[in-house]
Amino acid sequence: MSSSNGSRKFEVSEKFKILQSNIIKDLEEVDGEGKFGYEEWERAEGGGGVTRLLSNGRVIEKGGVNFSAVFGPVPEILIQNFGLSGADFFATGVSIVIHPVNPFVPIIHMNVRYFELSDGTCWFGGGIDLTPSYVFKDDASYFHHELKKVCDNFDPHYYPTFKDKADRYFFIPHRNEMRGIGGIFFDRLKPSLERDFDHLWRFTLAVGQCFAPIYTTIVKRRINLPYAEQHKNWQLHRRSRYVEFNLVYDAGTKFGLESGGRIESILMSMPPLAAWKPEYYAVSGSPEWESSNFFQPGYQWVEIS
Amino acid sequence: MSSSNGSRKFEVSEKFKILQSNIIKDLEEVDGEGKFGYEEWERAEGGGGVTRLLSNGRVIEKGGVNFSAVFGPVPEILIQNFGLSGADFFATGVSIVIHPVNPFVPIIHMNVRYFELSDGTCWFGGGIDLTPSYVFKDDASYFHHELKKVCDNFDPHYYPTFKDKADRYFFIPHRNEMRGIGGIFFDRLKPSLERDFDHLWRFTLAVGQCFAPIYTTIVKRRINLPYAEQHKNWQLHRRSRYVEFNLVYDAGTKFGLESGGRIESILMSMPPLAAWKPEYYAVSGSPEWESSNFFQPGYQWVEIS
Repeated sequence: MSSSNGSRKFEVSEKFKILQSNIIKDLEEVDGEGKFGYEEWERAEGGGGVTRLLSNGRVIEKGGVNFSAVFGPVPEILIQNFGLSGADFFATGVSIVIHPVNPFVPIIHMNVRYFELSDGTCWFGGGIDLTPSYVFKDDASYFHHELKKVCDNFDPHYYPTFKDKADRYFFIPHRNEMRGIGGIFFDRLKPSLERDFDHLWRFTLAVGQCFAPIYTTIVKRRINLPYAEQHKNWQLHRRSRYVEFNLVYDAGTKFGLESGGRIESILMSMPPLAAWKPEYYAVSGSPEWESSNFFQPGYQWVEIS
Repeated sequence: MSSSNGSRKFEVSEKFKILQSNIIKDLEEVDGEGKFGYEEWERAEGGGGVTRLLSNGRVIEKGGVNFSAVFGPVPEILIQNFGLSGADFFATGVSIVIHPVNPFVPIIHMNVRYFELSDGTCWFGGGIDLTPSYVFKDDASYFHHELKKVCDNFDPHYYPTFKDKADRYFFIPHRNEMRGIGGIFFDRLKPSLERDFDHLWRFTLAVGQCFAPIYTTIVKRRINLPYAEQHKNWQLHRRSRYVEFNLVYDAGTKFGLESGGRIESILMSMPPLAAWKPEYYAVSGSPEWESSNFFQPGYQWVEIS
C-alpha cells in the first residue's frame, strides 16, 4: 500500500466498506430470513456512513453492522479529552453488535477502526468480544482459539496482551464481573519501526475478517437448541448487564453521547428487550450459576505457550 | 426542634423512617395484592438502612421504597467530587421509584434527603417527578398543582424555582427530551437567616408526605383503563429512556456506582423490563406521539401568579 496519506485513508475506508458488505452477506445467510436495512447518512462537518440494522430475524433478534468514514476539523471534545492538537482528522470504522433470539447463542460485538490526524499521526484500534448468557466451554475455547490464531499470524504477544486488555475493558465494577467472556481489545496501535503501517493495517483487517466465520460457526452449533421461558428470562437478565456496561462504562458509547454523534448508531448496541428483576438470582449449581462463574477476568481459555 | 446536632440527626432520620412506613402502607393499600419485602442492611463504616422492594403486584410491577441513615468519616469520593473537608458526615433519606404494570399509570420517583457535616454545615435536598408513558393532561396538571400547593405553603418562589430545576435535571441531552413531565427538584438547601433549619426541614418533610396522596390519586384514576399490546410496547420503549437517563446522567446513580454503594438499592430504579426496538416510532398524531411532545422543558402545567 502506498504510504501517501490520501490513498491510505481511501484504501482503509474502502476495505472497511467491503468488510461491512461481506459480513452482512454472511449474517443474512446464517439468519436465513432477516434482511438488514440500509440507511446512508451524512455528517454536516464532513463524511458519513451506512447504518445497517436488522430486527426480528430467525436468528438475530436485533443486530447492527455500521460503517462510517468521517473527517473535518478535530472536534472540541477530542481536543479536551485526548489532548489532540487542532487541524483535521479522519476516522473510519466498522462496528457490530448482534443480539440473538436464542438464549444459547451468544451476543457478539466487533469493532475495527482507523484514526488519522492531518499531521500524519495515525493509529488502529478494534476488538471482538463474546457475551454468552449460557457459557458453553467449547464455544468459549473455540472463540479464543480462533482469535489467538489470527493474532499469532502477526505477533505472538498480541493475543495475551489484547486478551488481557479485553478482560480489563469489558469489566463492570459495580457488579464485580465481566460483560461476558472477553476476547481481544486493542487501541492506539501506532506504526513504528518494528510494526509498520502495513503490518497494523493487515492485522486490523484480519480481525475484522475473522468475525463472520467465527460467529456463524458458533451460531450454527447452538441455534437449534430448544429453550424454555427460564432460559429466555436469564438472557433478559444478562442483557441488562450488557446495558449497564454500555451506558455506564463503554468509552465509545460515552464519547458518542457526549460528542452528539448519531444516536441510532451509538445505541444500536442496546438489546431489544432487557430485564431488571430483583427476585432474579441464579440458583447455586444451576447452569445459570455455572455460567456466571466464567464472567471473571483472567480466565485462560487457551493455553499460551 | 432542638438545634443541637445530635437530636437533629435523630429527629430527621426517625421521621424519614416513619415516612417510609407510611408510604409503604399507602402503596400496599392501593396495590391491593403486592407486599413490600423488608431487608435491613448495615454499612461497615457506620449506619445502614432498610430496603423495601415489591415485584409483580396488581398495580406495581416493580417498586422500591428505601430508607437509609449512614455516617462515618467523609468518603474519599465526596472529598474529591464536592471539595468537602474531612471529618465526619451524616446522611439520611428516603428514595422511591415505582414502575406500574398498567402503561396508563405513570412511573414516579421521589427522594428526600438530609446531609450534615461534623463542622455543623447541613443541607436538605429532594424532589418528586412523574414519568408517564401516556400523558394525561389532567394528571399532569393535578400533579404540578399539588406540588405547587406544598411549595406555596413555604415560599412562593419554591415552585417556579424547583420546577425549573427539575426541567433541567431530568433532561436526556442525547434524546433532546425530558425523562417525563418533571416535577420539583431541590438540592443543597442550607439554613439561613431567612429560611432556618426548621423551615427547610418542615418543607422537605412536606414534600415527602405529599407523595403518597398525590400518587395514589393518579393511580386510582388510571388503574382500571384497559390496555393492549401496543400500549405495553410503548411503555417498554419509554422505560428504556428511563434507563438511559438513570445510567448515563442521574447524579445519585453515578455517585452510588462510583462510591461502591449498595447496588440493589442504587439500581432499584431500573424498570423490570425495557425495550430498545429500532423499528419503534410514534406515528404522527397518535397518542404516543402526542405524549412525546410533552417531554420538553419549560412546559407550564399550572399558572404561576
